[in-house]
Amino acid sequence: MQVDLGNVLDTATVHGVSRETLERLDARVADAHDRIERGREASEHGYEALNLPSRTDPDAIRDAVSRFDDPSAVVTVGIGGSALGAATLTDALESDVDAYYLDNVDPEAVEELLDSLDLASTVVNVVSRSGTTAETLANFLVVQEAMADAGVDWADRTFVTTGEEGNLRDLAEKHDLPSLSVPDGVPGRFSVLSTVGLAAAAICGHDIDAILEGAAAQEAQLSDSLFDSPAYAYGAVSYALAERGMLQNAMMPYAESLETFSEWFAQLWAESLGKDGLGQTPLRALGATDQHSQLQLYRAGPRDKLVTLVRATEREDVAIPETDLDGLAYLGGSSLGELLDAEFEATEASLAAAGRPNVRIEIDRVDEYGLGELLYAMEAACVLYGELANVDTFVQPAVEWGKRAARGLLGGGDFEEADAVAEKERLVIE
Amino acid sequence: MQVDLGNVLDTATVHGVSRETLERLDARVADAHDRIERGREASEHGYEALNLPSRTDPDAIRDAVSRFDDPSAVVTVGIGGSALGAATLTDALESDVDAYYLDNVDPEAVEELLDSLDLASTVVNVVSRSGTTAETLANFLVVQEAMADAGVDWADRTFVTTGEEGNLRDLAEKHDLPSLSVPDGVPGRFSVLSTVGLAAAAICGHDIDAILEGAAAQEAQLSDSLFDSPAYAYGAVSYALAERGMLQNAMMPYAESLETFSEWFAQLWAESLGKDGLGQTPLRALGATDQHSQLQLYRAGPRDKLVTLVRATEREDVAIPETDLDGLAYLGGSSLGELLDAEFEATEASLAAAGRPNVRIEIDRVDEYGLGELLYAMEAACVLYGELANVDTFVQPAVEWGKRAARGLLGGGDFEEADAVAEKERLVIE
Repeated sequence: MQVDLGNVLDTATVHGVSRETLERLDARVADAHDRIERGREASEHGYEALNLPSRTDPDAIRDAVSRFDDPSAVVTVGIGGSALGAATLTDALESDVDAYYLDNVDPEAVEELLDSLDLASTVVNVVSRSGTTAETLANFLVVQEAMADAGVDWADRTFVTTGEEGNLRDLAEKHDLPSLSVPDGVPGRFSVLSTVGLAAAAICGHDIDAILEGAAAQEAQLSDSLFDSPAYAYGAVSYALAERGMLQNAMMPYAESLETFSEWFAQLWAESLGKDGLGQTPLRALGATDQHSQLQLYRAGPRDKLVTLVRATEREDVAIPETDLDGLAYLGGSSLGELLDAEFEATEASLAAAGRPNVRIEIDRVDEYGLGELLYAMEAACVLYGELANVDTFVQPAVEWGKRAARGLLGGGDFEEADAVAEKERLVIE
Repeated sequence: MQVDLGNVLDTATVHGVSRETLERLDARVADAHDRIERGREASEHGYEALNLPSRTDPDAIRDAVSRFDDPSAVVTVGIGGSALGAATLTDALESDVDAYYLDNVDPEAVEELLDSLDLASTVVNVVSRSGTTAETLANFLVVQEAMADAGVDWADRTFVTTGEEGNLRDLAEKHDLPSLSVPDGVPGRFSVLSTVGLAAAAICGHDIDAILEGAAAQEAQLSDSLFDSPAYAYGAVSYALAERGMLQNAMMPYAESLETFSEWFAQLWAESLGKDGLGQTPLRALGATDQHSQLQLYRAGPRDKLVTLVRATEREDVAIPETDLDGLAYLGGSSLGELLDAEFEATEASLAAAGRPNVRIEIDRVDEYGLGELLYAMEAACVLYGELANVDTFVQPAVEWGKRAARGLLGGGDFEEADAVAEKERLVIE
C-alpha cells in the first residue's frame, strides 16, 4: 500500500501545503504517536482497536461459524459499526455465499429481503454489543418470526456476536447458540478487524488470516514520522488540510467493489472526528461514475475539499472490441481497465490544475490482504487525526438525545426529549 | 407533497432564519420566478426541463419499447444523468423486470453483471445524447461482444436513446433499432421526466403517466411566492441557509427505496450549483441507518449543514412480535414503520435542539405519482436556487479538462492536459 501526497504540495497546486509545513507537522506526529503507543500498551478504550491484528483469534471465529454447513446466505442483523465493517469485506470480495445486512428498520426492505431468502439455508448473525440496540433487536424479532413461519428452527440457524452480558448473551446461553464476544475497548466503527467484522467474511469463505496479515503490515509501519507510515501520512495531511479549510473529504475509490468501503470510511471519519464543532465531513464518492456527477462541484465549487482517490493497481481486465464508430476508434484495442486508469489520473490532475488538493492511495489488489492494509491504515489515520485535533476520537455523545426521544415516543419510558418532538414548530407549504 | 420549514426558523433553532428573512427573500423569489417563466416560455436551454410534464409523450416511450416482449431484465448503458434518473425510478418501484445500470467502466463489475444475465431475454438501452461518451460507448462495445458470444443478436435486443445525429443515431438507422430522441434543451441531470429517465421504467411496467401527473401537480404550483410552492420553498430556504454558511445539504430519506434518489439529487445539486466558487455540497445519507454513522457529525460537528429529511407517510408495515427481552418490551406490539417514524421525528428534533436547521419533505407514498412530485420539485428548487445565487445552472464546464486529459492518455489525440498528467508531482509514502 502506498500514499502519494504529491498533489497536496504547494508546488503541485495552489492552496497546497509546503514541505516545510509537513516537516513542522511531523514533530506533532511524533508526540501523537507516543500518546497512541501508550494507549495501545495500556489497552485503553479505542486505542485497543489498533491492537486487533494480533489480538483477534481467527480460529475462534471459524470455530463459531463452523456449525453452519454450506449456507446459501448470511444475514447480519446489526446497525452502524455492527454492519459496515463486515459489509465492506463481503461486498468487496466474491463468494458463492450471499451476504446481506439488516441495518435499517424500513419495513418494506426488511420484508422484501426475508421473502427472497431460503431461510432454511441462511445463517443469521445478530450483532449488538449491548444486546439492546432497538433497531437490531426489532429486526431480529421479525427474523425469528419469519423463520418460524417458514418452519425453520431459528436456534439452528443463528449465532450472536455480543458483549459478556445482556439480552443476546442470555439468549445464546439459553438456546446453546454459537457466539462470539465483542472485544473490550473497541468502538463499533473500529471493529472491522475483530469478531464483529470478520464473522460474515469467514462464513463467506474469505481468508480472514490474510485480512489480519494485511492489517499487521500497516500496524508494523506505525512510527514517529508521517514519512514512514502511509496511515499517518494520510491522517496528518487530512488534518493539516482541514485546518486550512478543507472541511470535506471526498473518499473516491475507482472500483465498484470498494463502494461500501466509502460508507465504512464515512462512519469512521464522521463519528470519530465530528465533535466540539470540529470535524471533516466525509463525502461518499465513486470513480469514474461521479466524474459525471460530483466533479464539477469538486473542481469549481467552494475551496473546501480534499479528494482522496483510491485504486488497486492490479485487477482482472476486459478488452474493448475494435470499433469504426466515428471518433471512438482510439477506444478499440484498449481495455475498460485502461480507460478507468486514464480517468483516475486525468481526474487527479484536473483537480490539481484547479488548485484542489488530492491524495492518491493505492493497494495492489482488492483482496483480503489489500483490504486489511487499507482498513487498518484508515483507522490509524483517524486516530492520529483525532490526536492532532485534540478531540475524543472514541465517543459519540451527540446521538444519545435522539435515542432517548425515539424511545420515549414508542412508550419506552418518560423522556423530556420526546416532549420536545411533540412541540415541533411547523411552517408547512403544500 | 409538503415541505415543512418549521425547523429552519429562528424560533425553533438557534442559527435559524426569521420569518422576516423569508418575507424579504420572497420578493427575490418573485423576480426569479419571472425569469424562470420567461425561460420556459422561450424553451431556453435548461428551463425547458421544467416543461417536460406536458412535453413528454408517454405513448412514444411505450411504443419504442414495445418490441421487447416479457424481458427478464433491462440494462441501461449510460453514465451520470443518462443513468441516475432512470435508476431512481426503477430502484424505488417494485417490478418483475430487473433493472441494471452500466454507469461505470470497472471491468470486474461489468463482467460480473454480464455473466449473471440471461442476455437472450435482456433489453439493452444505450443512452448518450452525443453518441460519443467514452464510458458508455466502451461499455456498449463490450455488451455487443458478450451478446455475440452468447449467440444473441444484439440488434434484436437493443434500443438507443440519443440525439438527432451521431454514432448512436447512425447505428439505429443502419440496424433499424427502436430509438428515442433526447429532447432539446434538457441537460442530463434534468432529464428524468423525459425519454432518458422513463424508458427503463416503462420496460419495468411502471405507470409513467402517473409519474408525469405527479410532476405536473408540482409544476402547477410554481408561483411567485415560496409560500405557495413546496419546490420553491425548498429551493429558497436551501439558498438562504447556504448564504448563512450551511454549505452542505444532507439529503436523508427514511426509506431504502429512496437511496438512489439521494444519488440523483446529489448530481442535480452538485453539477448545477457547484461553480464560480459557490455551491452547496450534497451529502448522500439514509435514515435510520446513518443515525448510527453520520448523525454525531451532523449534530456536533461544524455548523455548516442543512439536513433534509424525506419520508412517505403511507407504506406497508411489519409488526414487531411481542418480546420479554430485558428492556425491550416496549418494542413488542409496535411495528418497524412506527419505529422508523419515531426515529425520523427524534432525529429531526435532536438536530433542532442542537441548533442545526433541517427541513422535512413528505410525500404520500413512494409510488409513481409521489416520485413525479418529488423529482420535479427538486428540479424546480434547484433552478430557483441557481437564479438566486446568480450562477449558470445548466452548464458543467469544469469536467471538460479531465475528459481531454483522459482522451489524450488513451491515444485519442494531442491534448496538453495529458502532458500535465505525465508531469505529476509525487511524494510517496509506502
